[in-house]
Amino acid sequence: MLVVMKAHATPEEIQAVCDHIQQLGFRAHPLPGAQRTAIGITGNRGEVDRGNLESLSGVAEVIRVSKAYKLASRDVKEEDTVVRFPGTDAAIGGRGLAVIAGPCSIESREQAFAIAAQVAAAGAQFFRGGAYKPRTSPYAFQGLGFEALQIMADIRDKFGLRIVTEAIDSQSLELVAAWADVIQIGARNMQNFSLLKHAGRLRKPVLLKRGLSATLEEFLMAAEYIMSEGNYEVILCERGVRTFADHTRNTLDLSIVPAVQRLSHLPILVDPSHGTGKRDSVLPMARAAIASGADGVLVEVHDHPEIALSDGPQSIYPAQFVQMLNELEQIAPVVGRSLPHGIHVQAAAN
Amino acid sequence: MLVVMKAHATPEEIQAVCDHIQQLGFRAHPLPGAQRTAIGITGNRGEVDRGNLESLSGVAEVIRVSKAYKLASRDVKEEDTVVRFPGTDAAIGGRGLAVIAGPCSIESREQAFAIAAQVAAAGAQFFRGGAYKPRTSPYAFQGLGFEALQIMADIRDKFGLRIVTEAIDSQSLELVAAWADVIQIGARNMQNFSLLKHAGRLRKPVLLKRGLSATLEEFLMAAEYIMSEGNYEVILCERGVRTFADHTRNTLDLSIVPAVQRLSHLPILVDPSHGTGKRDSVLPMARAAIASGADGVLVEVHDHPEIALSDGPQSIYPAQFVQMLNELEQIAPVVGRSLPHGIHVQAAAN
Amino acid sequence: MLVVMKAHATPEEIQAVCDHIQQLGFRAHPLPGAQRTAIGITGNRGEVDRGNLESLSGVAEVIRVSKAYKLASRDVKEEDTVVRFPGTDAAIGGRGLAVIAGPCSIESREQAFAIAAQVAAAGAQFFRGGAYKPRTSPYAFQGLGFEALQIMADIRDKFGLRIVTEAIDSQSLELVAAWADVIQIGARNMQNFSLLKHAGRLRKPVLLKRGLSATLEEFLMAAEYIMSEGNYEVILCERGVRTFADHTRNTLDLSIVPAVQRLSHLPILVDPSHGTGKRDSVLPMARAAIASGADGVLVEVHDHPEIALSDGPQSIYPAQFVQMLNELEQIAPVVGRSLPHGIHVQAAAN
Amino acid sequence: MLVVMKAHATPEEIQAVCDHIQQLGFRAHPLPGAQRTAIGITGNRGEVDRGNLESLSGVAEVIRVSKAYKLASRDVKEEDTVVRFPGTDAAIGGRGLAVIAGPCSIESREQAFAIAAQVAAAGAQFFRGGAYKPRTSPYAFQGLGFEALQIMADIRDKFGLRIVTEAIDSQSLELVAAWADVIQIGARNMQNFSLLKHAGRLRKPVLLKRGLSATLEEFLMAAEYIMSEGNYEVILCERGVRTFADHTRNTLDLSIVPAVQRLSHLPILVDPSHGTGKRDSVLPMARAAIASGADGVLVEVHDHPEIALSDGPQSIYPAQFVQMLNELEQIAPVVGRSLPHGIHVQAAAN
Repeated sequence: MLVVMKAHATPEEIQAVCDHIQQLGFRAHPLPGAQRTAIGITGNRGEVDRGNLESLSGVAEVIRVSKAYKLASRDVKEEDTVVRFPGTDAAIGGRGLAVIAGPCSIESREQAFAIAAQVAAAGAQFFRGGAYKPRTSPYAFQGLGFEALQIMADIRDKFGLRIVTEAIDSQSLELVAAWADVIQIGARNMQNFSLLKHAGRLRKPVLLKRGLSATLEEFLMAAEYIMSEGNYEVILCERGVRTFADHTRNTLDLSIVPAVQRLSHLPILVDPSHGTGKRDSVLPMARAAIASGADGVLVEVHDHPEIALSDGPQSIYPAQFVQMLNELEQIAPVVGRSLPHGIHVQAAAN
Repeated sequence: MLVVMKAHATPEEIQAVCDHIQQLGFRAHPLPGAQRTAIGITGNRGEVDRGNLESLSGVAEVIRVSKAYKLASRDVKEEDTVVRFPGTDAAIGGRGLAVIAGPCSIESREQAFAIAAQVAAAGAQFFRGGAYKPRTSPYAFQGLGFEALQIMADIRDKFGLRIVTEAIDSQSLELVAAWADVIQIGARNMQNFSLLKHAGRLRKPVLLKRGLSATLEEFLMAAEYIMSEGNYEVILCERGVRTFADHTRNTLDLSIVPAVQRLSHLPILVDPSHGTGKRDSVLPMARAAIASGADGVLVEVHDHPEIALSDGPQSIYPAQFVQMLNELEQIAPVVGRSLPHGIHVQAAAN
Repeated sequence: MLVVMKAHATPEEIQAVCDHIQQLGFRAHPLPGAQRTAIGITGNRGEVDRGNLESLSGVAEVIRVSKAYKLASRDVKEEDTVVRFPGTDAAIGGRGLAVIAGPCSIESREQAFAIAAQVAAAGAQFFRGGAYKPRTSPYAFQGLGFEALQIMADIRDKFGLRIVTEAIDSQSLELVAAWADVIQIGARNMQNFSLLKHAGRLRKPVLLKRGLSATLEEFLMAAEYIMSEGNYEVILCERGVRTFADHTRNTLDLSIVPAVQRLSHLPILVDPSHGTGKRDSVLPMARAAIASGADGVLVEVHDHPEIALSDGPQSIYPAQFVQMLNELEQIAPVVGRSLPHGIHVQAAAN
Repeated sequence: MLVVMKAHATPEEIQAVCDHIQQLGFRAHPLPGAQRTAIGITGNRGEVDRGNLESLSGVAEVIRVSKAYKLASRDVKEEDTVVRFPGTDAAIGGRGLAVIAGPCSIESREQAFAIAAQVAAAGAQFFRGGAYKPRTSPYAFQGLGFEALQIMADIRDKFGLRIVTEAIDSQSLELVAAWADVIQIGARNMQNFSLLKHAGRLRKPVLLKRGLSATLEEFLMAAEYIMSEGNYEVILCERGVRTFADHTRNTLDLSIVPAVQRLSHLPILVDPSHGTGKRDSVLPMARAAIASGADGVLVEVHDHPEIALSDGPQSIYPAQFVQMLNELEQIAPVVGRSLPHGIHVQAAAN
């Protein structure tokens, strides 16, 4: 159920409706829009009696949401969600394209700073690096953990980059929320519902990667898990799905970009590094991602990928990253986007 | 690396080798076999110097394990693993077929007891019922939680059934380990590595379901995560994978049964309920599972599936469950197996 | 549309209805059943006016068939189709299980006769061998062609085996129809609609293999293509579909067996050789196929698979074939089937 | 095997080498390059004795081709293949992007001419329209056949568009080769090896669509079938593969574009209409295709898709087609391409 408030409803009226919903034993999710506020209702098994709600002051109408996901649905919020980072001009989901770059894993302070310096100079606004690594083998490098979080916090201070890093369980989630700017939830945890709920109780943006065999509905339902707990800043990310095809590590499903944009107001990024697993395919698929309408890309960059502790074969070189940004800048206007301006001047100067 | 002890190596010699391995900074996993004990070494990034190990008393040879999984591999332990339940004749992995049955979710004490009575009378040794449910939608029934664990403990007391139920996070894992006999880890958590490691530190058998798009190697690596922490009682379970086919909810991949048995010593069950999602297909696929060589089946049984809170369409009726056992009993001898004797007499009497 | 005749309708009445349908510009397909004859109508784009039809002598009712496939549907013909071979007791689809065995390719007269002798002695009623081979590479062995057809005709004369072999185009189709007993249409040609229609105009049974990524509906529609031309003796065959899984060459989808049997009256076989691509998996999956309710199996047998010109790794040895028959004979009664009696005595004597 | 001729080898020397190869019982495929000619050898089961070949006049070296496909491989021909159409400036594979547009099926002369006029005015150089339709159902519209070929020949005369249409069997193949400019072989026939060989014996360009579950190697092997018969003008086309995803009809696998370009010299197009099955996704994926480096697109355009006899939901409107061309023109320079100049002026004028 969704309560649509009148255009000029006051904050007090909105609050009164939320209070009323909670007195009914449900949960109220006020979602401000450009024109007016909508209030999502969750927690109800069946129908909510709409009579009383419609009679409350400031209420325009009460409508039924037929999709399985509600808060993630464009039915509930028509305008695109833009995730902003206070005190910076960085944003994910607006006119500017988001570029998140960095190594698969933080391997050492030196390695991380060297790569951060290069991606910052080239024009990235976001730095990614794995602190807690979900590895297929228990015997593989599992990440530097807390030490990596500290290194990335220092990178933020030095280069002004927003930090994106993955949380893999409750403990790491609390730490990532405290030290980073965006909490990444990986493909293998897309249906780790406990982790999703926990992330929903935090107030940090969550970058949610599509599971290896997740349908679009399951993907949006995973976002809904986070949002149903009150955290509405969810960023979706396509990273390839599992098919019979063997020329790439995964099959990057770019057609999910327009499909998501039809159904949901959440921003969607594309990760061509995991999506292909092959360095030579990263630039072509990054260009394709932006051309398909994605809100940005997340790419792995390494200055010495041949000795990377993880995912070396899919990491691009810093020079390729600069080339990628130049290419994306040219494609962006076709889809009504741009690379964030100030930063790109730096890249050109570089 | 694997240290193979001589046939007549003493416990002291085995202990001395383990101590030596730990002094090197690695982890030792003694794996007793019918003929002799092998000691798996994990925690080493590269090669372990084998010279010193080979010179220790009681050591027959030191061999390199080339597969990514070690403790789960048949190279390391030739004999089939049989998971036993002290104080009962129940077992998973031996000559007797394991039959795990019960409702998808524990909905109430009455419902659970009614179904338990029927599956016990028919010949099941294990009762399954969801206490903590991983649901695609945050708004769907999430299970009765702790109350369900208590109900199932009472079912164990009354009917002598071993209890199998799913844990979905750290908190539920501790509770399930305390109250149930087998900890189930669901398909969506097959690569929740934190949960796997936590389960590995417990001393309860773990039933690990194959992920929806997991390869055989990833499946065995997930088992390895549990085993690498010292819990060697892992039971694998095929439950269908995701394909383009739409005549069943998932595509049950029975060919993984002989493939697992070639590569691993761990028992493997089949879940034809989730594997097909259709009541009419459960019996045919349960028969096929046993014919393919599986160590048993896990099936959803409900006396009123049309009003079940979850998975009604794939739950069979108690009468179908009796028919299934009769059919499995006839197929079992073809693959050198049987349904556990004493219990089946009860079923026939019923 | 389907015209159901009264139980005691005379041949003349049936003919009159067919004539009437054809005068309307449509095609009539009389399908005799145990109780009464049904007449399928194809060729109509929209609705057929049922008024006149219902008033014809001997007509019980005229019903609409809502499925995309009509002649293949169980709605149109309730009884299982049994494909018989005049002058022999061989059948596909009845109580007896059909066993089709032989080498992937006919490589020489000596090779073919040696294998035929062994499978005949063991109890097969059908011999398969490739004359025209659809090979992924243009440079691979393409089959002996017409010479192989002659060899197999001689095998029929000598061993009393019915011959099953693949046609790959119009020319080979005419030859196979003339020389063999069952025309096989391979997975790669399942949607070669010209070939299907051509096969539909012949009067030889057609064994139609499921395409590598065919849905159940597409599979039945391919059968419908053959049937719509008047050839109603279609035998379906599951041979594995393409998925991400890499432990077998294809993923054998046994759950299609009960699904087909719900929707269609056509017999369905399983090919565990192509379905797994691995010799060690053939027997387990053959057992599983019969346990799932399949009408028989199609297996590759070779006396020297290590030097086979094609598919050696998936061909079983003659001794394994004998073992397979013994195992299938034990499973058959569970699903109300048997191995054809007389022949099996031979196998035991062998 | 591949014979690489010296840079200044004369036509006579090249001919002498071909003659020699044929005398050995093999087949010679001279493949002229920018610098020098290579001669592919097919028909040999094992190694060809290279001694004599290397001693022939004009021969630079004889090298072994390790890939399963030879003539399609970039090892054999380094320069990109450009398919040209004598007497026109149309080309597929060069600097200019190829745009092939038209209705799924030719439904009538009026419909075809109306759409052709619009796509020609907008800037397409190639017109597509189905004459012979491979339909899943035998009861669906199967195309106008020969009449459609005549209509399209008239369209070529009137609008100067090159004609692309599908052949589905030997008979239609001969007709399409006689009446059209490019023979299309559809996804369902990608492994109809008889049809591929037949097309290889003709001297018309062949547009080969990727099969619904074809790997990259199988795709290139299908091209090799055509080329091994002497027809080297093969155009590849990605049109979506079959996966579990259900938000599009197929999953468009754009990552095959850079993968093909690494391994093969053949041009590759993308069909976003079949690749998505949804009108709203066609433009985003067409843009993405060009951004990924594809040599062009093949799109379905219909002026009244709501009444189209086939594939209406995935056909774009003429106005969308104009918009698409404008977008592709802006993206083209990023990948070093352009829309053919003269024609685009027309579009702008329109």
